[in-house]
Amino acid sequence: MNEIRTITSNRADERYAAGCGFVGGEYRPIAEVSVSVLDWGFNKSDVTYDVVHVWQGGFFRLQDHLDRFWRSMEGLRMTIPHSKEEVAEILTECVRKAGLQDAYVAMITTRGVPLPGMPRKPGLLTNRFIGYALPWMDVIAQDVQERGAHLVIAKTQRIPIASVDPTIKNYHWGDLIRAQFEADDQGADTAVLLDAEGYVTEGPGFNVFAVIDGAVVSPDKGALEGITRKSVGELCDLLDIPYQVRPLSAQELLDADEVFTATTAGGVMPCARIDGRIKGNDRPGPISSRLKEVYWRKHDEGWHKTPIDYDAGA
Amino acid sequence: MNEIRTITSNRADERYAAGCGFVGGEYRPIAEVSVSVLDWGFNKSDVTYDVVHVWQGGFFRLQDHLDRFWRSMEGLRMTIPHSKEEVAEILTECVRKAGLQDAYVAMITTRGVPLPGMPRKPGLLTNRFIGYALPWMDVIAQDVQERGAHLVIAKTQRIPIASVDPTIKNYHWGDLIRAQFEADDQGADTAVLLDAEGYVTEGPGFNVFAVIDGAVVSPDKGALEGITRKSVGELCDLLDIPYQVRPLSAQELLDADEVFTATTAGGVMPCARIDGRIKGNDRPGPISSRLKEVYWRKHDEGWHKTPIDYDAGA
Repeated sequence: MNEIRTITSNRADERYAAGCGFVGGEYRPIAEVSVSVLDWGFNKSDVTYDVVHVWQGGFFRLQDHLDRFWRSMEGLRMTIPHSKEEVAEILTECVRKAGLQDAYVAMITTRGVPLPGMPRKPGLLTNRFIGYALPWMDVIAQDVQERGAHLVIAKTQRIPIASVDPTIKNYHWGDLIRAQFEADDQGADTAVLLDAEGYVTEGPGFNVFAVIDGAVVSPDKGALEGITRKSVGELCDLLDIPYQVRPLSAQELLDADEVFTATTAGGVMPCARIDGRIKGNDRPGPISSRLKEVYWRKHDEGWHKTPIDYDAGA
Repeated sequence: MNEIRTITSNRADERYAAGCGFVGGEYRPIAEVSVSVLDWGFNKSDVTYDVVHVWQGGFFRLQDHLDRFWRSMEGLRMTIPHSKEEVAEILTECVRKAGLQDAYVAMITTRGVPLPGMPRKPGLLTNRFIGYALPWMDVIAQDVQERGAHLVIAKTQRIPIASVDPTIKNYHWGDLIRAQFEADDQGADTAVLLDAEGYVTEGPGFNVFAVIDGAVVSPDKGALEGITRKSVGELCDLLDIPYQVRPLSAQELLDADEVFTATTAGGVMPCARIDGRIKGNDRPGPISSRLKEVYWRKHDEGWHKTPIDYDAGA
């Protein structure tokens, strides 16, 4: 999946080959898509976002991502001067201009830049919308995907719900970056974070799943309500695999038959080791592998797909 | 203090009147100082910073801010290709170009922009330095300063030390913004956040102090090691006021004789109300007011001052 597939159409433009963004009301090459250092979206991380992927010429679960993006903005009391339909069209135009068949597509709203002397009240600022499309890249290298990822359980705790609501998609990655350093220091691929009570939450950019006695289990709180996770739940139903969203302790994760992760940026990712414990035959387990395979096969069949008309648009 | 005092020198430049920044190795007008949406400093808030102020033509405690900025970078395993002396010179040049006698001056290091296809490992990225100087503005309006700020104790908890180290200056303001909305909804000026055990930590951008039985008390953990707070401690010594850094409960704050805050962006700020409780005569208390007065008088005397030569430089 590392080869970049592009589309030839009269709307694609070489200047956008590395990615196309929409910022300040204009389409720009990705290198020019930036945020002022005075925007609270940067200097207070007062920002929300969502990422949807495009696969073989169509968005995957676009409406789910738009709906979650709107819920996130409402949670932060942000508004933008675009409807969901308009945002969908802006994002589609970013994909068209970049001529991408497979892409990551981001939608972002920042709190905005205060006027000089304005009281420090978030409700006074004018929020700003940014969108962009980038060529699809495997976040997890192919060889890691094939051997199964190696995880550690981080000592760093996930930022608690009482401080920052994890269901509002946010850029507060300080804890996740610390946890990633823990993984890197131990030669692992990535990390899983626990809450203060020792329950599994999520990792840097992904939801976590354990396969226990034939059932797939994912934590009920402290984690993003992942849309890939939602897909995993639907696939479990389809495959008659019991699916449970409930508290999951660190010990259960260590003792699980299989562990896997899920994210928009890569889909279902089987794991082979956690904290040095070897799962199965030190390779992706059967249920994880089956879910991964069906996840991508369903993509090929057009599941939850919004096709892109590459020649339409302004 | 709302009037902007500027310096006439052969180094000031009209293009930088609204502020001057240094980004990508070049000096630019503040409107052009921005961060790529692909920089982890934005999209993972993987960034540290410091802010020093310039008052009447000189930096205040510049070395303290540079030392803390370096400790923050070390804590996040970041490096930049500049020495402390070089950063000091870059920041000085920003102030010169903007021609500012009173300014906020920021130094920022972001994790950087990953190359396409690079593994998601923070240690692989090239970190980026940004600096900028802005005209001094009162963060708290003069009328609020005179009547004394109205605080609330927020329901939102401060992000805990186990997740993000508050002594590494960071842009994880999600909890602080939520708390500010709580204050705004109640018609107060700002908020104080507690930790999970109910102890006082800090507020949006400031340290918190209680005056109890003639002593000044500030929390020992869960808060930034503020440099204005350090100044408050030194002023207490000077004025023979007992100064204690220790756990401070919410109840002690409510029952305190006086409450005040301290920040680089404004200095010592007396408070008049907290959660509707009225302190003293609903106005700044005597010890808070004395500390505020001496804080600025010491500035006039050149305390901890690094004067700027406005005509020097490249």
